[in-house]
Amino acid sequence: MRAAAGAQFYAPVDGELRELERRLADVGRGAHPTFREAVAHLFTTPGKLLRPTLVFLAARFGSLADREVVLNLAESLELVHTASLVHDDVVDAADLRRNIQTVNAKWNDDVALIVGDYLFAKAYALAAVLPNPEVIAIVAQTVFALCDGELAEVTAARALPTESKYLERIELKTASLYAACCQGAALLAEAEPEHVAALGAFGTNLGLAFQITDDVLDLVGDESEFGKTVGRDLAEGMPTLPMIYAVTERDGDSPALAARILAPRKSPDELRELLAIIRRSRGPERARQRALSFHDAAVRALAALPDRPERTALRDVADFVVSRVR
Amino acid sequence: MRAAAGAQFYAPVDGELRELERRLADVGRGAHPTFREAVAHLFTTPGKLLRPTLVFLAARFGSLADREVVLNLAESLELVHTASLVHDDVVDAADLRRNIQTVNAKWNDDVALIVGDYLFAKAYALAAVLPNPEVIAIVAQTVFALCDGELAEVTAARALPTESKYLERIELKTASLYAACCQGAALLAEAEPEHVAALGAFGTNLGLAFQITDDVLDLVGDESEFGKTVGRDLAEGMPTLPMIYAVTERDGDSPALAARILAPRKSPDELRELLAIIRRSRGPERARQRALSFHDAAVRALAALPDRPERTALRDVADFVVSRVR
Repeated sequence: MRAAAGAQFYAPVDGELRELERRLADVGRGAHPTFREAVAHLFTTPGKLLRPTLVFLAARFGSLADREVVLNLAESLELVHTASLVHDDVVDAADLRRNIQTVNAKWNDDVALIVGDYLFAKAYALAAVLPNPEVIAIVAQTVFALCDGELAEVTAARALPTESKYLERIELKTASLYAACCQGAALLAEAEPEHVAALGAFGTNLGLAFQITDDVLDLVGDESEFGKTVGRDLAEGMPTLPMIYAVTERDGDSPALAARILAPRKSPDELRELLAIIRRSRGPERARQRALSFHDAAVRALAALPDRPERTALRDVADFVVSRVR
Repeated sequence: MRAAAGAQFYAPVDGELRELERRLADVGRGAHPTFREAVAHLFTTPGKLLRPTLVFLAARFGSLADREVVLNLAESLELVHTASLVHDDVVDAADLRRNIQTVNAKWNDDVALIVGDYLFAKAYALAAVLPNPEVIAIVAQTVFALCDGELAEVTAARALPTESKYLERIELKTASLYAACCQGAALLAEAEPEHVAALGAFGTNLGLAFQITDDVLDLVGDESEFGKTVGRDLAEGMPTLPMIYAVTERDGDSPALAARILAPRKSPDELRELLAIIRRSRGPERARQRALSFHDAAVRALAALPDRPERTALRDVADFVVSRVR
């Protein structure tokens, strides 16, 4: 089932992941038939389940082993993630995700909007019964961060952001959820404060490495392997780090290249030409290096944790996240 | 500020309402500027605040007087309500609500989608810290009901529903929230079980009376007074109770009239003609009577409560809700 099924980092938490998969498949129970069908569609191929894997691994660094409570957090955050993807796909008018049809493509925008609302509601209902108010607050803060990041994206001026603006946006839209998985689980399991902090730093850096990798693959990836339409960000005029770097290396005509990148609804010819320009530039390579530097920071954060199989597994997750561009 | 500002039922809970208005105006603090602007836009004219008024009045029938906790429930449910309106307006492509521009009209669909997500998240963050898990569950159930109702609406076959299907839909989309306000507040205030039940029944019947009244006004109302475009449901082919009744009184040509009502995107001429046909029928009058019967059931439920100024105020709310069609 799991997309990275061969990866060894799943092994220590395989039981929890199976139980989570059962629960996710059951999220639509009792609800409107269309929601049930959408849930079946979304969770039949549940993706890599990296975020719940992080929850289960991070919880092992605490003194408290309440499996049920940790499962609730994992399910809640995976539902937050799925809900935000369903809504993002409406905003981006995306047809495919992980090689399967999006909810807006299979049904329509209205259904996708309501299905997303439903998934968020299920996520909050699970979060609300967690025993630790600090963790409930983390789940809420994560959704605020996702909304802030998404609003920043849809209201952005048509201008190339600086590297730091770009990093700010992906921290809100991606890294905050990774951090919430690691930090929230550690808090629930009553881990030592320095271990909670280390896991939070690990999650943030891992999330940044993941998103930059994704943005590089959108420009240089193989369409069939990647599971999304390649060049999508560029086609939409959504600037990412490799594009920002590609523009900065052009001296004379950088404003011209930036304007071409930012133009919405490009022709197929223009898209092909721009892809070729960016692939020939050092942009993708420099972005790869940036992803690797966040990977390294994530791995360094792990040094504060006790040496256990779960720490090795977290390191393997970090390696996996950037392996596609190594 | 309040749309029904002269109404006497606000008096017993005026202090709480003022505090709530302050808090609603502050919901955007710390968030993205576009969300702050949307919050200012949405809560500058906060509407009738009927739902929070119900929360504050119902809480007076309990033995516990924790003002802070009751304010949190009122704010949470008002945010749930506002979030669902913002998303409904996207689905319905509505331009106006309460005589002001909708978020989708003032900004666009993408912004409205994210603003709604944000408001839901704020609502849940408030609900999650309520001291009573049963009340947290009621808030979550209310959102599920709203989603179920909205999904039923957007996936409905193009056919005239029966009266009972129509009532089921408005119970999910409207009455569940009214019931949650009354019942949730009573539970928080630790009211006697029979008073909690009476307030729940009051809320459900009040909500049904309110929605049928709204649906009648959409067909026979005065556009400037009503604050929405009149004939909107009919223009969209969204069947409501007065239309269902208008069709049932036609013997021979009822399928033909039903088909005309259900047609989407009608021409202005066709819309005008259909409005005239329905207004000439007994449909609006019979729907009015149905609203009044739910009003009466709501008032009967109040008999189980002790005779206090707050009970009189609840009765006044019920009278107000149907006064526009009396």
